[in-house]
Amino acid sequence: MNMLHLVQAKRDGREHSVDELNWLMGEVVKGTIPDYQLSAWLMAVYFRGMTPTETAGLTRAMVNTGRRLDLSSLGPHVADKHSTGGVGDKTSLLVAPMVAACGVPVAKMSGRGLGFSGGTLDKLESIPGFRVELSAHEFVAAVRTVGLVIASQSPDLAPADGKLYALRDVTATVESLPLIASSIMSKKIAAGANAVVLDVKVGRGAFMKSLDEARALAAAMRDIGREVGRNVRAVISDMEQPLGNAVGNALEVREAIESLRGSGPPDLMEVALELGTNLLEMTGRAGSTDEGRALLVQAINSGQALERFRAFVANQGGDPVIVDHLERLPKAPVQYEVTAPSAGYVRVIDAEAIGRASVEIGAGRKVKGEKIDPSVGFVLHSKVGDAVREGDSLATIHAAGKEDAERIAPALLGAFDLTRDPVAAPRVIIETVK
Amino acid sequence: MNMLHLVQAKRDGREHSVDELNWLMGEVVKGTIPDYQLSAWLMAVYFRGMTPTETAGLTRAMVNTGRRLDLSSLGPHVADKHSTGGVGDKTSLLVAPMVAACGVPVAKMSGRGLGFSGGTLDKLESIPGFRVELSAHEFVAAVRTVGLVIASQSPDLAPADGKLYALRDVTATVESLPLIASSIMSKKIAAGANAVVLDVKVGRGAFMKSLDEARALAAAMRDIGREVGRNVRAVISDMEQPLGNAVGNALEVREAIESLRGSGPPDLMEVALELGTNLLEMTGRAGSTDEGRALLVQAINSGQALERFRAFVANQGGDPVIVDHLERLPKAPVQYEVTAPSAGYVRVIDAEAIGRASVEIGAGRKVKGEKIDPSVGFVLHSKVGDAVREGDSLATIHAAGKEDAERIAPALLGAFDLTRDPVAAPRVIIETVK
Repeated sequence: MNMLHLVQAKRDGREHSVDELNWLMGEVVKGTIPDYQLSAWLMAVYFRGMTPTETAGLTRAMVNTGRRLDLSSLGPHVADKHSTGGVGDKTSLLVAPMVAACGVPVAKMSGRGLGFSGGTLDKLESIPGFRVELSAHEFVAAVRTVGLVIASQSPDLAPADGKLYALRDVTATVESLPLIASSIMSKKIAAGANAVVLDVKVGRGAFMKSLDEARALAAAMRDIGREVGRNVRAVISDMEQPLGNAVGNALEVREAIESLRGSGPPDLMEVALELGTNLLEMTGRAGSTDEGRALLVQAINSGQALERFRAFVANQGGDPVIVDHLERLPKAPVQYEVTAPSAGYVRVIDAEAIGRASVEIGAGRKVKGEKIDPSVGFVLHSKVGDAVREGDSLATIHAAGKEDAERIAPALLGAFDLTRDPVAAPRVIIETVK
Repeated sequence: MNMLHLVQAKRDGREHSVDELNWLMGEVVKGTIPDYQLSAWLMAVYFRGMTPTETAGLTRAMVNTGRRLDLSSLGPHVADKHSTGGVGDKTSLLVAPMVAACGVPVAKMSGRGLGFSGGTLDKLESIPGFRVELSAHEFVAAVRTVGLVIASQSPDLAPADGKLYALRDVTATVESLPLIASSIMSKKIAAGANAVVLDVKVGRGAFMKSLDEARALAAAMRDIGREVGRNVRAVISDMEQPLGNAVGNALEVREAIESLRGSGPPDLMEVALELGTNLLEMTGRAGSTDEGRALLVQAINSGQALERFRAFVANQGGDPVIVDHLERLPKAPVQYEVTAPSAGYVRVIDAEAIGRASVEIGAGRKVKGEKIDPSVGFVLHSKVGDAVREGDSLATIHAAGKEDAERIAPALLGAFDLTRDPVAAPRVIIETVK
């Protein structure tokens, strides 16, 4: 095999063979392929795309470069959930304990926030003492003990993905459907769960800005699942406005716990129920959508989901007392209200603008490794479709200082678009790709 | 400026500004841009192309990275000639002395052969003592003394081109029209001549395999000339079969000298006359095509072109006696005839196959820096359209040993396709793009 020939082949729109893809990913991990050839290949993939078979072959080749977690000792079904990322997306913190409370083990690896998009690990780390770095042994043991685990992505799973992603990031080749799909799926496959539900976000605050792109990504990942024999479904959900009300790490944990107590915002609950129901159906725990939904609602109402969350926090070193004492979560010293300049209906809350503002105020990071402040962020008091009066608070800014809050307030207000005419509340679940 | 933004812009099909291109080429020469970003950009250019203005801007930016030769002291017009490369293409060895003999100074920088394509410098170096490495001072002085010079490309002209080319070569981005056009033209512009005729070869033995591609390249280079204020014409000529009869360095020099004596093969003479006539018209030396052709024919018939060649050889350290004693050129020890297996008409002589066979026998190189044997090569005895009888010699192999000759003979024979039906001789000049 010869890298120049592979670059030429992809440039000319030819399909790579399984052998070629295995060779390529193997060499990527060994570091024998010069970055300049790899980046030329990535750009050729950007323009030429890949067939479904080829995308699955690439995914498998990436998986083959590293370890694979064996979760078979945990029973016939292990569930995993992944979101393509959004603003205010704390769904994993709900879905995992809800599904675990229904008796289906959940084993999830997760990432950190970057750019306008938040990360589950950052949210969890706002709980005092919480550990996200677990060994493979601890990971499996956690599922066995409490029925769920959320830990950081292990670098020895699909290591080719890490190398490719780092290069894509600096060569304008992130936005390629087969590369996105294989990157996500290689990690999911290596992490060992056999029922995976994907939350493909679409809209201003998502990576996929159009429904067509979201559908294509959802179908590509479902197809990879089919080719490699994993049960995969993708829910396409709205990310035009932030999900739920809280944006910012401790604020989102607080909202997740309130949701597990039964008082979650409707849009967040809707996404959590849809994702959870799919997992219960896929693992055979529920025979129908209605049954799945009923089980999940029952898990909340009975307090079992909250109990699971508490056990999960304790098991990973976090302080379980926060579940009953939300005031022990990190709290920003300054609260600052952003008020409606006129009466009207909320037409738009620009999720990307909110996400960028949250980075500016210290809740997220522009570049990898940057420190974040777990306490800061925003709580929205209105969502799209709501009526507001002049002077009503649209959102509360939680900031480290008054200057920070005043500096960010115009951006937050600018994310809201009010109109005279009534506006319908948007659908949050757009469709499910099975 | 930020390279990632430039890669994104080109990936998305946006036009680069003059400032961006100047910045980019400047940084390329400084070495501050990682190769992986540059190669991603090159692949994006491959797919997105460049506008004529952008291609001219890139060319100028490449010129700006190095020295520019000032030939203004040589008079109002200085001619240059460039071929995109072919098999048996010794045209420069004729055109330069013919045009110089008509009183138009010729200043040409040239390259070495690589792959199936030969190089003028290699041909000239088969003349004992001939020096191709000249200082800028020697280069200008040569034109002043003998009216013509052919020397190696100076590395301080358009150095960005050298860096880009090296990366294109290993990233499958050589075959990009704006990159090819700007590479050629940046060197021509920096080398200082103001009347440039380009010989764009098309066919099996050329870089451009289709007439559409050749036309596009010719037009792109003519357009660059217009944008930068240089008089540029491009002649598109046939490279389906080798040009002339000789392929191999000393053999081609011999054929060039024989042609300057008035007994050149018709196709080679036709290309030389067409290129030369264009240069005489462009520099005002001839008022019409007919006048230009007559002047060039007169330069041959009077012996003045041959005299110029002799002076040129002597001036660059070569042994001028070879002009009258062709037997003093390097001569291969073995001559081996390849004969027609049946009677018929020559339908095809595959120039690329002949070129590759010439590399195999030692007349060319597969990779840069490889040593070549100046004496070896082939002399064809038939061209497309000729009738041959069974047993006629189609070509003579000049080889270092009998084994070499026998090994290469099947490839040479395989390049010939004979047919029962008469075949028309092809046109060698296809069209001129002014």
